[in-house]
Amino acid sequence: MKTAFDILYANNPHKAEAFLDETRARKPLFILTIATTETGKITGISAAGKYPEFTDYTPPADAELLLLGKCKCINGVPVTPDGIPTPALITMSALRLADIPVLVASGGLRVKPQIPFLDLGGNPGRDIRTGNAVDNVAEVISRATLAGEQLAKAADYIVVGESIPGGTTTALGVLSAMGVHAEGKVSSSMPENPHDLKSEAVKAGLAAAGESFGSLAGDPVRAVSCVGDPMMAAFAGLVIGAAGLVPVLMAGGTQMTAVLAVVNGLKPDVLCNVAVGTTKWVVNDRSSDICGIVREIADVPVLAADLDFGGSRFEGLRAYEKGIVKEGVGAGGAAIAAMAATEGAVTKELLLGEIERNYALLMGMK
Amino acid sequence: MKTAFDILYANNPHKAEAFLDETRARKPLFILTIATTETGKITGISAAGKYPEFTDYTPPADAELLLLGKCKCINGVPVTPDGIPTPALITMSALRLADIPVLVASGGLRVKPQIPFLDLGGNPGRDIRTGNAVDNVAEVISRATLAGEQLAKAADYIVVGESIPGGTTTALGVLSAMGVHAEGKVSSSMPENPHDLKSEAVKAGLAAAGESFGSLAGDPVRAVSCVGDPMMAAFAGLVIGAAGLVPVLMAGGTQMTAVLAVVNGLKPDVLCNVAVGTTKWVVNDRSSDICGIVREIADVPVLAADLDFGGSRFEGLRAYEKGIVKEGVGAGGAAIAAMAATEGAVTKELLLGEIERNYALLMGMK
Repeated sequence: MKTAFDILYANNPHKAEAFLDETRARKPLFILTIATTETGKITGISAAGKYPEFTDYTPPADAELLLLGKCKCINGVPVTPDGIPTPALITMSALRLADIPVLVASGGLRVKPQIPFLDLGGNPGRDIRTGNAVDNVAEVISRATLAGEQLAKAADYIVVGESIPGGTTTALGVLSAMGVHAEGKVSSSMPENPHDLKSEAVKAGLAAAGESFGSLAGDPVRAVSCVGDPMMAAFAGLVIGAAGLVPVLMAGGTQMTAVLAVVNGLKPDVLCNVAVGTTKWVVNDRSSDICGIVREIADVPVLAADLDFGGSRFEGLRAYEKGIVKEGVGAGGAAIAAMAATEGAVTKELLLGEIERNYALLMGMK
Repeated sequence: MKTAFDILYANNPHKAEAFLDETRARKPLFILTIATTETGKITGISAAGKYPEFTDYTPPADAELLLLGKCKCINGVPVTPDGIPTPALITMSALRLADIPVLVASGGLRVKPQIPFLDLGGNPGRDIRTGNAVDNVAEVISRATLAGEQLAKAADYIVVGESIPGGTTTALGVLSAMGVHAEGKVSSSMPENPHDLKSEAVKAGLAAAGESFGSLAGDPVRAVSCVGDPMMAAFAGLVIGAAGLVPVLMAGGTQMTAVLAVVNGLKPDVLCNVAVGTTKWVVNDRSSDICGIVREIADVPVLAADLDFGGSRFEGLRAYEKGIVKEGVGAGGAAIAAMAATEGAVTKELLLGEIERNYALLMGMK
């Protein structure tokens, strides 16, 4: 793994370096794609909220945190059942250090954020076990493509992140439907990755839809409609629209591979302008394999922010080193973009300091 | 009136020229702010639709035209009762010639456009004669301010336009409430300006709200809430947020003076970064006085696109020279931005040719 700044190249160092060269000293627009789904409420699937209904508030709360520096639709910030804070803290800190602008796009929400957001015509997702998880996928992709094109004309390049609870289960769903071997390879926000639960939900969803492993290899729109989530439609459209014009960093963990598969199925020629940006915690995770899944889809570079919270004075942040949370809200990609935009002036140490400062402020600690 | 490219300086040539110098050869983001209001349905007030209920479709249809090159929520394009086409045709042609990106922001809509749009938390407006025309004004201004700040970080500068039927009546409402003498001075999309109808509606609205001329000089939020429209809240917030960082061209006719009054009341220091961009048809209109109203509010330059449709092969376009429509959907500002961005390569002749081409295409003519 060759490194530049505090960034690791996780798979293809030449392509990763070329992507970084294209984006260094340039200012991106960060787009956070948010959505909610009933899939995130399946018991044991997600750590995005203590209670299933809380998962409806996590994405809008994350979005509010990025734009306002605090949440409005909930008190405090989203935390896991163990009290570990949302990775939106990392994203917010990175974007502020590098003065990177943020726009929020909704794929479909049960609870609306109290900030401006781009409406792409989507609805909240259903449980994938119904086999009929997402409405209106083609239309949302098409509207998001339009938005991606327009925004790419205004910004140097685009970073897209996501916040949707249960997103690795729906990722496994779409990857399986499209014939990508991802079972046992998607990541988890929890220390014990509930691979079996995810596989069961996906199998039930595919069966309910009358589909099977690989049967939708040529139909990404139907794959998302049956066993995906509404974030994917919005995210894939933004990538398709923007990457035709400028570089696009897909900021996220193994969920990004499902979006990659969708983009690859609809508009493969834009992938030469695309990289995945994630965290060290994802690429080093032994219970998942982001580079392995990517390799099955397309030759897209994976970059990872070499974050290290081991020396943090807060236990809630040190927990990230134990594999809790790992990624989300585009944390890794935002860190990479902040380091690249400032040509390394934003280091992992500086970033941790800012994250600790914001964490203490938001938690009312000294 | 000193000129540069095909642009007229309508009031303060030094400030107008300085604004143009700051924006020439730079690429703006064009934001179209759309909203609907029951005020636009008062008989005789607006030419935005043949039938009152059609005014709910005009703003979303205008927005679709800019982004898609065609309308989705209606057949054809919006036309006046006499069949004169929407000024969105001018805007669309100008933006496309200069490859200027577009984003649509909603202040509050009865009919949603079938394209991506920024939701700012607003509702459609009521008839100003109720004295209670707009909900949620402070919150919409605050969300739009956030959006304006973020978008200003991504773009070289910002052009904001509007589409809302009945907008000069609500403009007269807010100007009157704030003590600006605008009676008989706001423009009209119709050849005969129904000044009396507008004044009557405004008087009724002020009375219903328990307010009078100038009683809300210090409270722009309440002025918009009582006798304004939802476009104003969104538009003013975008200007406040963006003009703190980059130049902002307020693209529109006399409606812009009401927004100026709101911005001047809330954040006057940003006005040094603001100009109004309109059309020759507005600044030359004898039934209105844009520069006179601006002068009462602040020393902001007014630029006008020197468009001339007199030689057009289409009667529907030649009608603009008779004072029909005149402005709207940011037509004048979009033309100015296209001329400035291309350093004059987009001339008024080139623009008319493109407008005629698009008009013929959309109307199915040869």
